[in-house]
Amino acid sequence: MRLHPFDQAIALHADGPDVFAGHCGAAYWNMVGPFGGVSAAIALRAVLQHPALLGEPLALTVNYAAAVAQGPFKVSARAARTNRSTQHWTVDLSQTDAAGVTASVLTATVVTALRRATWSGSDIAAPPMPPARAFARTSAPAAVEWFNRYEVRTVAGGIPGTPPESPNPAPAEFASLTQLWMRDDPPRDLDHCSLAALADVFYPRIFLRRGRRGPVGTVSMTVYFHAGAAALRGCGSGFVLGQARAQVYGAGFFDQTAQLWSESGLPLATSSQIVYFKD
Amino acid sequence: MRLHPFDQAIALHADGPDVFAGHCGAAYWNMVGPFGGVSAAIALRAVLQHPALLGEPLALTVNYAAAVAQGPFKVSARAARTNRSTQHWTVDLSQTDAAGVTASVLTATVVTALRRATWSGSDIAAPPMPPARAFARTSAPAAVEWFNRYEVRTVAGGIPGTPPESPNPAPAEFASLTQLWMRDDPPRDLDHCSLAALADVFYPRIFLRRGRRGPVGTVSMTVYFHAGAAALRGCGSGFVLGQARAQVYGAGFFDQTAQLWSESGLPLATSSQIVYFKD
Repeated sequence: MRLHPFDQAIALHADGPDVFAGHCGAAYWNMVGPFGGVSAAIALRAVLQHPALLGEPLALTVNYAAAVAQGPFKVSARAARTNRSTQHWTVDLSQTDAAGVTASVLTATVVTALRRATWSGSDIAAPPMPPARAFARTSAPAAVEWFNRYEVRTVAGGIPGTPPESPNPAPAEFASLTQLWMRDDPPRDLDHCSLAALADVFYPRIFLRRGRRGPVGTVSMTVYFHAGAAALRGCGSGFVLGQARAQVYGAGFFDQTAQLWSESGLPLATSSQIVYFKD
Repeated sequence: MRLHPFDQAIALHADGPDVFAGHCGAAYWNMVGPFGGVSAAIALRAVLQHPALLGEPLALTVNYAAAVAQGPFKVSARAARTNRSTQHWTVDLSQTDAAGVTASVLTATVVTALRRATWSGSDIAAPPMPPARAFARTSAPAAVEWFNRYEVRTVAGGIPGTPPESPNPAPAEFASLTQLWMRDDPPRDLDHCSLAALADVFYPRIFLRRGRRGPVGTVSMTVYFHAGAAALRGCGSGFVLGQARAQVYGAGFFDQTAQLWSESGLPLATSSQIVYFKD
């Protein structure tokens, strides 16, 4: 059986205590490196594959230190602390260059935890949105290969065109809001790794706010997981409903927040990221 | 000159390459450990004091692995990667127990960066709020010593009383919104370390949502810094305006987001955290 491209991209094999080896291919290629969502999934995957794992993903922070190159990489995942119901992981993804120099290209921390039945609720409602099939599929921007690995149907706040610039929208709380339906293509059953990647599918908010694209790169992303493995299995390969908006832009960086729900309105994950931009 | 209690709490001295030593006292004591905001500031402080530092704080993620005990601790801060304009740090705070066993009590990652003049803007407006002096000072809950180190004036969403429970408010986007003015007491000029701590001053949103207090503990907090050192110096010891609200609660954890502005409305930081709760 041929592996799904996502499973191929995040495949790791044990390569010593706390070390895993993987390979970066072209299937999820972005402009100068792989799609950051897949790199986040790889960091998480190393933890989930670790023999000492306790519980399920709760929090993931990924710091993008350098562009990952196509070719082999190693991931170290170390349990810094194991408690009764939580576990704290430190992750580092490194590559060795042509000159034989090994350097970190990504650092991450992961918290895993045992989930237990408690009171639950939400202070953020899933936005009322017509079903995915009511919207046309959004095609990949030129040279953004990874976007072809997702079926994205944009509900609001689509990616602006190329220059000439449109005028900046007036500052407003929802100036940078995008809402979309998304899932892997080909469809793949949802799990924590694919969910982590979906949290990064939203294009940089500054494109929308300024009405044009420009050089950008995520510096750090955090994902909080609100659904356990069983709940994610229940989503099958259905669409995920996501929305993202920016907070503050300045001094070459801006941040954006995102929320993801299942088709049935179950909160799956919340996320934030800070992004480098060039004027 | 006597050090400000905050400076005393975060004081570190070099103790070898990439290692700093500090001491946890009682001034910022919470129920079972120090105020998490101060622990976050210590992790950041180690990076800022490192001789190899490049730039200023951009992103900080702190994972609270275990309660910090009163007494000595060590902080390791290692530059995993240094680029032209960004630097990626891995931080670990450890303590040695009575039996001589050393263990991590906190892990963190920090990204520092050179700020440069670019287009700036905000998609989140500072909420219109009357000046701090229009509101009474909020007194510290019993046994929450650290709260005495802050002058907090609650504008909306004050901490609910002790049981008997009030009925749960209906789910709504702003069911868990708190807005407040805050600053160090005694007043202290704002910097990135004190700002990181202020991002954690908001009490857990679940208290407000459920109308009662209960056992909680922050598991992971992320802070994005939107103001440079010069802008923070310009704030002097003025109040910081903050708001926080929850997103999703369930399976023993919930997350909350926060935004902080200067008295003049300058966006200073945005933050999120995920918190353990017991029913």
